[in-house]
Amino acid sequence: MNEQMQPPSGVIEGSRHLYPVRVFFEDTDLSGIAYHANYLKWCERARSDILRLLGIDQRAAFEAGEGFYAVSEANIKWRRPAKFDDVLTIETRCTELRSASARMIQRVLRGSELLAEIEIVAAFLSSEGRPRRQPEAWRAAFATFIEKDPE
Amino acid sequence: MNEQMQPPSGVIEGSRHLYPVRVFFEDTDLSGIAYHANYLKWCERARSDILRLLGIDQRAAFEAGEGFYAVSEANIKWRRPAKFDDVLTIETRCTELRSASARMIQRVLRGSELLAEIEIVAAFLSSEGRPRRQPEAWRAAFATFIEKDPE
Amino acid sequence: MNEQMQPPSGVIEGSRHLYPVRVFFEDTDLSGIAYHANYLKWCERARSDILRLLGIDQRAAFEAGEGFYAVSEANIKWRRPAKFDDVLTIETRCTELRSASARMIQRVLRGSELLAEIEIVAAFLSSEGRPRRQPEAWRAAFATFIEKDPE
Amino acid sequence: MNEQMQPPSGVIEGSRHLYPVRVFFEDTDLSGIAYHANYLKWCERARSDILRLLGIDQRAAFEAGEGFYAVSEANIKWRRPAKFDDVLTIETRCTELRSASARMIQRVLRGSELLAEIEIVAAFLSSEGRPRRQPEAWRAAFATFIEKDPE
Repeated sequence: MNEQMQPPSGVIEGSRHLYPVRVFFEDTDLSGIAYHANYLKWCERARSDILRLLGIDQRAAFEAGEGFYAVSEANIKWRRPAKFDDVLTIETRCTELRSASARMIQRVLRGSELLAEIEIVAAFLSSEGRPRRQPEAWRAAFATFIEKDPE
Repeated sequence: MNEQMQPPSGVIEGSRHLYPVRVFFEDTDLSGIAYHANYLKWCERARSDILRLLGIDQRAAFEAGEGFYAVSEANIKWRRPAKFDDVLTIETRCTELRSASARMIQRVLRGSELLAEIEIVAAFLSSEGRPRRQPEAWRAAFATFIEKDPE
Repeated sequence: MNEQMQPPSGVIEGSRHLYPVRVFFEDTDLSGIAYHANYLKWCERARSDILRLLGIDQRAAFEAGEGFYAVSEANIKWRRPAKFDDVLTIETRCTELRSASARMIQRVLRGSELLAEIEIVAAFLSSEGRPRRQPEAWRAAFATFIEKDPE
Repeated sequence: MNEQMQPPSGVIEGSRHLYPVRVFFEDTDLSGIAYHANYLKWCERARSDILRLLGIDQRAAFEAGEGFYAVSEANIKWRRPAKFDDVLTIETRCTELRSASARMIQRVLRGSELLAEIEIVAAFLSSEGRPRRQPEAWRAAFATFIEKDPE
């Protein structure tokens, strides 16, 4: 294999980011629907994708001891169940950007149907786990995302 | 092996349920702390334990097509990180009991230190995924739990 | 959102299937590398993708009570660790097709570097969990995959 | 809460270690049985428990940069499905102890019924991920476990 296949990547359209997810066996439980905690995993994948699209290398920053994001707050409403093999879109908007944290609204959609809505606060932490200002370049990158298409 | 070892079980003390959890490798991520979504798993283990202690057989009910609980809402605040090998206690109180749902406050503790606080609504659903009244015996069981030690 | 974004899909090239995966926070543990059990999840995603590409609708079959695949055997060698944010390719070959099971070799690659190798047997089971012949159309679909490019 | 509840702990009986596990919602998938990859998680919990019972503090060693265990090989046979709410026992025997690795046989039992059998090699790695001799005290501790009750 010469070329490397690329896993799905989301896109930033104005002030929102869209990221595709498929529901696999690992995501379901015996009730036949996606296990509730997994929505948080999907949303985290989308947020990591945003950072990557904005040119932020989380792994390099983490390895250099600069810190990392940790979720400090989440308000989640599950409205309809996602099912095995569903194709979902995670839509993310950044609603507030502070020096050491960002607030986002993430929606889990199946086509135009809203399955879940999550308001999340991601706090930037030092390697030792203390709140810390986000690197200035990161804040600036986020700022372009938040400001592009204000509502 | 003649006798069956028993996995940890929680206890109901008045109006609260206490359930022990240890943090394993599977629970951590590269930042060295427990991955945020796993707190929802631990809380679900505690809620399943409550049902068991109240004499409710979720599996039999599910297999008989009577329905199951699904989380419809969660508000989570992560305050301090849980770490590998930590021994945690999940403390659960039921704060509201309605015909088709129950509201609970769950706290993740390390000793007396509060790591996370979760307010959760579990809705009872039919096998087809529609809201449904909780079986009367289940509601009655929950009621003993909620009323034992009012604050 | 009018159009639905598509999550990554693999491709069948001759007798092998290639499927891309990115390593997210959820996949790592505190040692900084991907948690070993997650390789089985990635391989299962790849196998589900193969079925989909071959026109097999696992969900419909499952809902119709026709049965499902369960892994009955896996021999895994982890050679080098996958790290956070790595882009991996899961390469799958079907090496043996029997009436009620299929044997596959799956390799987890980072570029041309082999990270893990997994030999797996997937057995077809009835809804009640008993071994069962694979639906004839499924076997035929698999057969095109296995025979296209024999080595 | 003054006293800390303890999560389940296993016991070492001669040359085998027994560790109890309950199957929760998070462990199942839509086929109604435990997801295959989770058996590896249960086995890892049991191995961590062995180290703890032998007086080995994995977390302190990891934080001090001494290294950690990583699974390098696993051969797994799933024979019967584990189901929601099952109480399982993970039985572990150490069959070979080398300078930088240990080989174990782990069996997942439901009462006397064998659900899965796993032969596993755990390799000790430096913080940088390179094979490394196990700390002498760890090897000695394991040796008491392996030699107590030879078959």
